[in-house]
Amino acid sequence: MARRLQVAVSGLGRMGARHAVNYLERTPRAQLVAACDPDPQALAWAKDRLEPYGVTLYRDFDEMLAHEGLEAVVVAGITTEHAPQSIRAIQAGKHVLCEKPLSTDVAISQKVIDVAQTKPHLKVMTGFSRRFDESYRSAFRSANAGEIGKPVIVRSQTCDKFRDDDYFVNYSKTPAPSSVVKSVTAVGTVARYPGLKALGDVDNGVGIVEFWGGKIAYFYASRIMSAGQTDTTEVIGTHGKLTINANPGNNLVEFHEPNGIRREIAQTYYDRFEPAFVRESNEFTEACLDDKELPFKLQGAVQALKIGTYLQESFRSGKKLSFDESGEPIVEEKAKL
Amino acid sequence: MARRLQVAVSGLGRMGARHAVNYLERTPRAQLVAACDPDPQALAWAKDRLEPYGVTLYRDFDEMLAHEGLEAVVVAGITTEHAPQSIRAIQAGKHVLCEKPLSTDVAISQKVIDVAQTKPHLKVMTGFSRRFDESYRSAFRSANAGEIGKPVIVRSQTCDKFRDDDYFVNYSKTPAPSSVVKSVTAVGTVARYPGLKALGDVDNGVGIVEFWGGKIAYFYASRIMSAGQTDTTEVIGTHGKLTINANPGNNLVEFHEPNGIRREIAQTYYDRFEPAFVRESNEFTEACLDDKELPFKLQGAVQALKIGTYLQESFRSGKKLSFDESGEPIVEEKAKL
Amino acid sequence: MARRLQVAVSGLGRMGARHAVNYLERTPRAQLVAACDPDPQALAWAKDRLEPYGVTLYRDFDEMLAHEGLEAVVVAGITTEHAPQSIRAIQAGKHVLCEKPLSTDVAISQKVIDVAQTKPHLKVMTGFSRRFDESYRSAFRSANAGEIGKPVIVRSQTCDKFRDDDYFVNYSKTPAPSSVVKSVTAVGTVARYPGLKALGDVDNGVGIVEFWGGKIAYFYASRIMSAGQTDTTEVIGTHGKLTINANPGNNLVEFHEPNGIRREIAQTYYDRFEPAFVRESNEFTEACLDDKELPFKLQGAVQALKIGTYLQESFRSGKKLSFDESGEPIVEEKAKL
Amino acid sequence: MARRLQVAVSGLGRMGARHAVNYLERTPRAQLVAACDPDPQALAWAKDRLEPYGVTLYRDFDEMLAHEGLEAVVVAGITTEHAPQSIRAIQAGKHVLCEKPLSTDVAISQKVIDVAQTKPHLKVMTGFSRRFDESYRSAFRSANAGEIGKPVIVRSQTCDKFRDDDYFVNYSKTPAPSSVVKSVTAVGTVARYPGLKALGDVDNGVGIVEFWGGKIAYFYASRIMSAGQTDTTEVIGTHGKLTINANPGNNLVEFHEPNGIRREIAQTYYDRFEPAFVRESNEFTEACLDDKELPFKLQGAVQALKIGTYLQESFRSGKKLSFDESGEPIVEEKAKL
Repeated sequence: MARRLQVAVSGLGRMGARHAVNYLERTPRAQLVAACDPDPQALAWAKDRLEPYGVTLYRDFDEMLAHEGLEAVVVAGITTEHAPQSIRAIQAGKHVLCEKPLSTDVAISQKVIDVAQTKPHLKVMTGFSRRFDESYRSAFRSANAGEIGKPVIVRSQTCDKFRDDDYFVNYSKTPAPSSVVKSVTAVGTVARYPGLKALGDVDNGVGIVEFWGGKIAYFYASRIMSAGQTDTTEVIGTHGKLTINANPGNNLVEFHEPNGIRREIAQTYYDRFEPAFVRESNEFTEACLDDKELPFKLQGAVQALKIGTYLQESFRSGKKLSFDESGEPIVEEKAKL
Repeated sequence: MARRLQVAVSGLGRMGARHAVNYLERTPRAQLVAACDPDPQALAWAKDRLEPYGVTLYRDFDEMLAHEGLEAVVVAGITTEHAPQSIRAIQAGKHVLCEKPLSTDVAISQKVIDVAQTKPHLKVMTGFSRRFDESYRSAFRSANAGEIGKPVIVRSQTCDKFRDDDYFVNYSKTPAPSSVVKSVTAVGTVARYPGLKALGDVDNGVGIVEFWGGKIAYFYASRIMSAGQTDTTEVIGTHGKLTINANPGNNLVEFHEPNGIRREIAQTYYDRFEPAFVRESNEFTEACLDDKELPFKLQGAVQALKIGTYLQESFRSGKKLSFDESGEPIVEEKAKL
Repeated sequence: MARRLQVAVSGLGRMGARHAVNYLERTPRAQLVAACDPDPQALAWAKDRLEPYGVTLYRDFDEMLAHEGLEAVVVAGITTEHAPQSIRAIQAGKHVLCEKPLSTDVAISQKVIDVAQTKPHLKVMTGFSRRFDESYRSAFRSANAGEIGKPVIVRSQTCDKFRDDDYFVNYSKTPAPSSVVKSVTAVGTVARYPGLKALGDVDNGVGIVEFWGGKIAYFYASRIMSAGQTDTTEVIGTHGKLTINANPGNNLVEFHEPNGIRREIAQTYYDRFEPAFVRESNEFTEACLDDKELPFKLQGAVQALKIGTYLQESFRSGKKLSFDESGEPIVEEKAKL
Repeated sequence: MARRLQVAVSGLGRMGARHAVNYLERTPRAQLVAACDPDPQALAWAKDRLEPYGVTLYRDFDEMLAHEGLEAVVVAGITTEHAPQSIRAIQAGKHVLCEKPLSTDVAISQKVIDVAQTKPHLKVMTGFSRRFDESYRSAFRSANAGEIGKPVIVRSQTCDKFRDDDYFVNYSKTPAPSSVVKSVTAVGTVARYPGLKALGDVDNGVGIVEFWGGKIAYFYASRIMSAGQTDTTEVIGTHGKLTINANPGNNLVEFHEPNGIRREIAQTYYDRFEPAFVRESNEFTEACLDDKELPFKLQGAVQALKIGTYLQESFRSGKKLSFDESGEPIVEEKAKL
């Protein structure tokens, strides 16, 4: 029988469990051989759902790493373990798909990249699920083919019902363009979760990132949407415009009711992007087995994280941050005194 | 000051009152000089709303017809008076805009046309409001320009919340194409107004009209819609398709609510087509003043009425009606015996 | 490891090959163990695509039926073999998923059902892919929950770019309601494929099916669409309306271009319904393994085929067909003489 | 006959001419009695289009102001004359509808307000056409009724094909909320009109305005759109969201073509908002005749202009501007030294 990639998943929380099932059942060229989680409840789930299909379970990541024949690891546990586990997996000679963010710290993220560069034959990727979404791909294909001239403005909104992670860092969800950042500004407000104020966090934020060369990206992120997940992206080019999900709908049904016509929308990020996660598993597997190039560079994750960090810093300081043409922060005059 | 067309309106019920106000206030080249209605309540409304602007009120149609300087009459009273009043107005040398239908009887309708042909300098038109709707016009312009090849199939639905007029005859609302009818079939059902059964009427009907030469039109009409007025037309051509109102919306607002995204739609036929009625008044006025050709021929109204009558006959008899290439009914063999 | 259903696919043409790959890679609880096709080219494809994964290939259906441990067969070859192979598979004690139609002949279809009833422990299903489409399911769930009152009118259109199979029989694609047919009328026209005339076939057809009890279904089918596959269904109830794909779009991208805003749509039936086919494979597998009830009854396929046959007969004879309250054809008076 | 408001229009350029025709023909309760423009070409147009209807033409604004019986003036000429002419008209005891902006200078705008306050019986209004748009009204009505909880975030985009006026000041198009500004940031880029660089102007701009109390408004304005005018507004509340024109379309027609489904959109701001301009004329007239309250306060125009000026200053200086809780600019430390 044709060879299948031997994969393990670290972390069986909500996202990790989804990854595990996707590798078990929806990634034909991969075989899920191992999974680990220190949490007994997560392991109990795995005993029921994964073990019957021949998946070996571990409490300890490093023991799992030693699983015989293991070729690739999906790092999907708590954020603080993303970078350390990725590094150990790379050092053990495994391909790595690490959930985002690599780290909330730019230096630590960069270290993952540095380690990865010592093993250039390994595939090391972060999980930018939108990159695997059919609509985003179709749009980027059109933009890259010059169909809208030269892209100038990007508007992106990521709007969820509930969010409990660190807010502005989530901007790193959107892979950054290759241009050099010129300025970053972010403002935010607390509309429904008063408790966030004490954490220096917000439930609605707006940011602008200006790049050297004339491009501008602006963002809106929210965790108070009523109808559901409404992520929208627009790319405005010199000669055309592309929109992705400007007119959201969950499926093709509309309800004609006494107060109008209604359609339902995806409730969560995973609802919206589930097929993209499956495609991600399959393309990562294919890249490992056939030594194909990954669809994007790991360095982009650090660039995105940097921008997320800048947005957060701009929000917290109340300042607009400026950068020179090499991307270095411009320290304010006053501070020099 | 530039000359304005001297217009009178006969019948001040719901539609007649709208026509009167449209001529009074929204038809710059027309001057509403007279109005009549036998009903005291309608006249009381007119005394308040029209008389202050110099409109002379009459109880009697023929007295109004003798109003000095009168040039054009809008016939908008009860259906049984449409044809008689139109004929008298034409004979008195007035331009006529007659609400549809001219009559529910084909022979009587034809008589209006015959009389109109004795006064070819007069403008005589029936009120096919869709012909004045911007979207229908845009679509028909595209179809006539060959943008969808040769039109083959027309689907039309006229779906209201409430209707108390004679049902199938309302198909005459849609002006018929110039082709010769080959067959007519209609079926109907009573879903919410049980009382209609006794009248031989329905609240939902579906019909097919086949034309010699290969065109087919099919219709759905309903008076039980929940969300509002949902009139939709599709024209399928050999090389493209046009839709009108396939994705209804009242205005440009959408409501994001916990159970989805909602938009409201027009509640009534007049809500949907109000701008078309105003355009109708203005174009009729322009045709009269400048002796321009009307946008469609009066004969079409008789053709449309014939088809409406056939649909009704098909529904009531439970038969498919067939016609030869000159449009004459094909009498069934059995009947010939 | 958990037990997987041992499945074989008969017929590796376009649809059969898709079924084979879906069972191989996208149906976790099934194992594709065998496939057959008399055509050397199809077998060559299978040698490359299926054999490496342990699938045994056969030229002969009956030899494949004897494959050790085989539990279920997907019958997806030429239409004339659907019924014979299904019958032999049932007699051999296999579960059967038979592509539609069971047969273009009502009596032969009924025979499959009769044979199936002799083995009530077997799952025998036809491939009504729309029944597995998320949007259709959501709509039918709402309708069944009474959200639109009592369904009264169904409009269904199935519009493809190209079609080379027998036309009206394809109406059988739409599972029929359980009500008794009262009348059937169909008309059609040839707009772009003049060669169809000689075959007594059309490229655009419109039909009405009236049911005893007051329901009406009407259909439009076409094989001349320019933009792509545009299948739409509306269900009008006494107190609401559901639409499925009234506003088609392939994905969530829109292109803003000098001549307007454009979106692309699915090009083929499979493009539109691919996820439904995968769900069908999975649910059929689950029903076989867990002895669950199938989502619809096989008898519906015969009812749908009967209606398709009536539509074809109505079109070919130019007559409206009528039926009594037990569903028996009402023979015309004249014929009785 | 019922009394009609005696109106004059100053300035017969593109917008002035539209106002003149709207008052002449589409504002039943107003009578256009006079118009002025120093430009012979504009007067030639007026001689042909207005004079036949009894409109007296003037070269000089002040002569026109002395027209006997004149009650109201529409100031629609060049921007630099907006404030001076408005002031003279108010001083002469006329109602004033002044096209926006009152002035590009905040102090001058304020002076108009100050003068207006000396004549409280006069109606003085600026032309915020969106306030008269049916969709904006419907949305604001819903927001004011609490249907989306408390509004938190406003996104507004104003995207034209061509623009040759002063860019950022145009933000003043959007009436500002009553809250006090906390910070303003704007960035911009030149994508298609290189000549704008020399003028310190841009063809694409993004801005954020933060208000004390927690509201945020963010803007995107562009003059390089391909498909046409695409103005969109979103209002996000604590418990719902409203969108206006999120899914633009010019009318109800869609074209099914080989490369997809296409709809056309409004080409210009006037195309999009024409009915709003007509409603504006009628409501201004009604307010003057019946001494009704105007739909919004003149002071809002100054607030909007201030914000536009801040955005421009932020763009030109490259700084984020901050304000204290009374709305006073916070001067940077360094400047104090």
